[in-house]
Amino acid sequence: MKSILVKGAYIVTQNEARQVLKGDMLIENGRIAAIGEVKDSADETIDAQGDIVIPGLVNAHTHVAMTVMKGMADDLPFNDFLEKSFSIDAKRTEKDIHAGARLGCLEMIRGGTTTFVDMYYSEDVIARATIESGLRGVLCWAVLDHEFTTQKGVPLKNCQRFHSSHQGNEMVIPGIGLQGVYVCSKETFLGAKELADRTGMLLHFHLSETRKEVYDHKRKHQRRPADWLQEIGFLGRNCLAAHAAWLTINEINDLARSGSSIATCPVSNMKLATGGVAPIPEMMSAGVNVAIGTDGSTTNNSLDMLGEMKTLALLQKANRWDPTIVSAQQALDFATIGGARALGLEKEIGSIEVGKRADLAIIEGRSANIWPLREQTLVAGIVYCANAGNVRSVICSGRPLMLDRRVLSLNEDDVLEESNEAMSGLLS
Amino acid sequence: MKSILVKGAYIVTQNEARQVLKGDMLIENGRIAAIGEVKDSADETIDAQGDIVIPGLVNAHTHVAMTVMKGMADDLPFNDFLEKSFSIDAKRTEKDIHAGARLGCLEMIRGGTTTFVDMYYSEDVIARATIESGLRGVLCWAVLDHEFTTQKGVPLKNCQRFHSSHQGNEMVIPGIGLQGVYVCSKETFLGAKELADRTGMLLHFHLSETRKEVYDHKRKHQRRPADWLQEIGFLGRNCLAAHAAWLTINEINDLARSGSSIATCPVSNMKLATGGVAPIPEMMSAGVNVAIGTDGSTTNNSLDMLGEMKTLALLQKANRWDPTIVSAQQALDFATIGGARALGLEKEIGSIEVGKRADLAIIEGRSANIWPLREQTLVAGIVYCANAGNVRSVICSGRPLMLDRRVLSLNEDDVLEESNEAMSGLLS
Repeated sequence: MKSILVKGAYIVTQNEARQVLKGDMLIENGRIAAIGEVKDSADETIDAQGDIVIPGLVNAHTHVAMTVMKGMADDLPFNDFLEKSFSIDAKRTEKDIHAGARLGCLEMIRGGTTTFVDMYYSEDVIARATIESGLRGVLCWAVLDHEFTTQKGVPLKNCQRFHSSHQGNEMVIPGIGLQGVYVCSKETFLGAKELADRTGMLLHFHLSETRKEVYDHKRKHQRRPADWLQEIGFLGRNCLAAHAAWLTINEINDLARSGSSIATCPVSNMKLATGGVAPIPEMMSAGVNVAIGTDGSTTNNSLDMLGEMKTLALLQKANRWDPTIVSAQQALDFATIGGARALGLEKEIGSIEVGKRADLAIIEGRSANIWPLREQTLVAGIVYCANAGNVRSVICSGRPLMLDRRVLSLNEDDVLEESNEAMSGLLS
Repeated sequence: MKSILVKGAYIVTQNEARQVLKGDMLIENGRIAAIGEVKDSADETIDAQGDIVIPGLVNAHTHVAMTVMKGMADDLPFNDFLEKSFSIDAKRTEKDIHAGARLGCLEMIRGGTTTFVDMYYSEDVIARATIESGLRGVLCWAVLDHEFTTQKGVPLKNCQRFHSSHQGNEMVIPGIGLQGVYVCSKETFLGAKELADRTGMLLHFHLSETRKEVYDHKRKHQRRPADWLQEIGFLGRNCLAAHAAWLTINEINDLARSGSSIATCPVSNMKLATGGVAPIPEMMSAGVNVAIGTDGSTTNNSLDMLGEMKTLALLQKANRWDPTIVSAQQALDFATIGGARALGLEKEIGSIEVGKRADLAIIEGRSANIWPLREQTLVAGIVYCANAGNVRSVICSGRPLMLDRRVLSLNEDDVLEESNEAMSGLLS
């Protein structure tokens, strides 16, 4: 693997001290070998004068294959949205799932994301697309009760098979994707937990996105979903709950005590108007680890983590009438080191530190919408000013996926053509 | 002026029927001469296969010269924010106002905006920058009571002088910028109205951004601000109220009956956490014309109208728990024809129709975050998917300001250099 020297950038390290410094970075064998003034030379040099290097962003909840469904179910009442999404989803083929996953990976590369957490069926197909793209994917196979699934075979067995065939792959990390308490019984949750504890897989699940699912569950089980998951012994350090919007303080404490993480999806929650606003301030006080996800392309409709950070900060401030809530620094923390921690990968990714994997996004600082640059305003510049178009280069585990806006890992024309065909198939 | 032929694009006309069509567009003498299949040739041809042409966006409320202050006052309690902003603002020189205005114009060009409404003092300096940039600026000179101003001379007289020296300029349209009921007396409002009625200038003013200003005014005048403005005979067709967040139904009716327009600023309101959410559904029902503004760069921190449309739709949906509120089409309407109407320019700009000024943004449709394109999903694609980086070319009044992401009207390096110096001056 080629060594790379990134020269003269502002580096937003996201290390413990949240240092921002100006200097160079040496990448060797896929890892960060040196930061500061680097005298060594390397196989490849990137002149990053005037640029800003940030840790590659972690999109902690998405359904990447749905990118070819974008624009198909907007501005609809929630039930109409579900019906439309499910009816399109039912038509899906391996080919269009692959095309959608590649399109989504392409979009994420262009937006500075290097790691994503996916939840879907057919993760083996999505794994192929992920490997081609060069991104790191934690791919969580959808698991739900037999009576609700359209999968062939038993979902948990399919997930286990996916794990067996992909374990040990650094870039495709199999996980378990539990669709939610409304389609997963106690036995399904605990079966998944047993498999997760045995294999080290992540337990990723939708939690309390809508008020209806909370009260339906409460009617049936006399417990709110997170309380119930705690009670049945499911919650633990390997848990990552997506949405986590309609929670009580007691449920937040359940999540905190168990060491669970959450992935908040502000754009999706706002667009679907599900009412709940994830209680991020209380989660932070209680010590719940917070990450950010874009959710899928029918509810966002983008996989843009830069936009997601800004919307999160805006929503949280607006919701509490308090402009100090979720500062730019905190939003960036959630999207980097918080995401890494949610995946148990905080020793490997999420910050720019010697020894960690070289997962980086290089943002063009000399952009009218970000400029002028000052060390003390850089983080605000990334969260409140930058857009995906400002991302110049992306490196994942030391491999350049995009340099100067030219994507190297995927043939962009091919990806666009095949995703266009995929959409035609779904619309027909 | 060169004729231009735009070939083979999707054209989001924003005409009365909101037609989206695929075809060509001919621009002659700064205006749209033909739409559809155009056989004529032109001095210049733009191949726009796979691109989306939209009317140039109208940013209906900003303080463009504040772009060099971005990142200086984030995540602060509201009073600290005001104090910090005012203390920096007090240091401003003509030179850094000019630099800030040029930087802001550059950012707006890159984001597909062709017309903006500004409120500030020293609009003569901002006019120079606007003319250089090639954008259309409705520049509203800040008017307030003598006891509150730091302007030399009498603000309304300064405004009148600015009008005299710039009237008849197609690209710089002088307006009156009343800072708000908290610093403008009845006499100031009515003096401004008299001048506006006599000259045709726009009356642009901050209205009910914060709850405090509403209740302070009510305590003093026994009327809420919009009710009071109606009662003193100020409101009329030439009024454009910015923010308009804390309004009663009665005040909405005041605005509707008088034919006033509003510019909602969702990102700014959320970031400052002022609590109020502009009652857009009620305004639409009552017939108030709605436009969208980014506000200035200390409260956003960008001048990105694509992002602003998305945030508006998200905020309105989330606030009412109703995903059908502010559809993608309505958000685009507010940012185009709504903005044009607010300025009394709906016969000239705001839609792509034969005879209108050629104000256009060309968006690269073959972008991973927007693609695949279908006529029925294009508008959602612009509002929910596109970012400023997708804007490929911008034409204002027939003049190309940016072609294939190369800005032609401004020397980008110069603008960045001088705005960097300007920021240094303000930070020192």
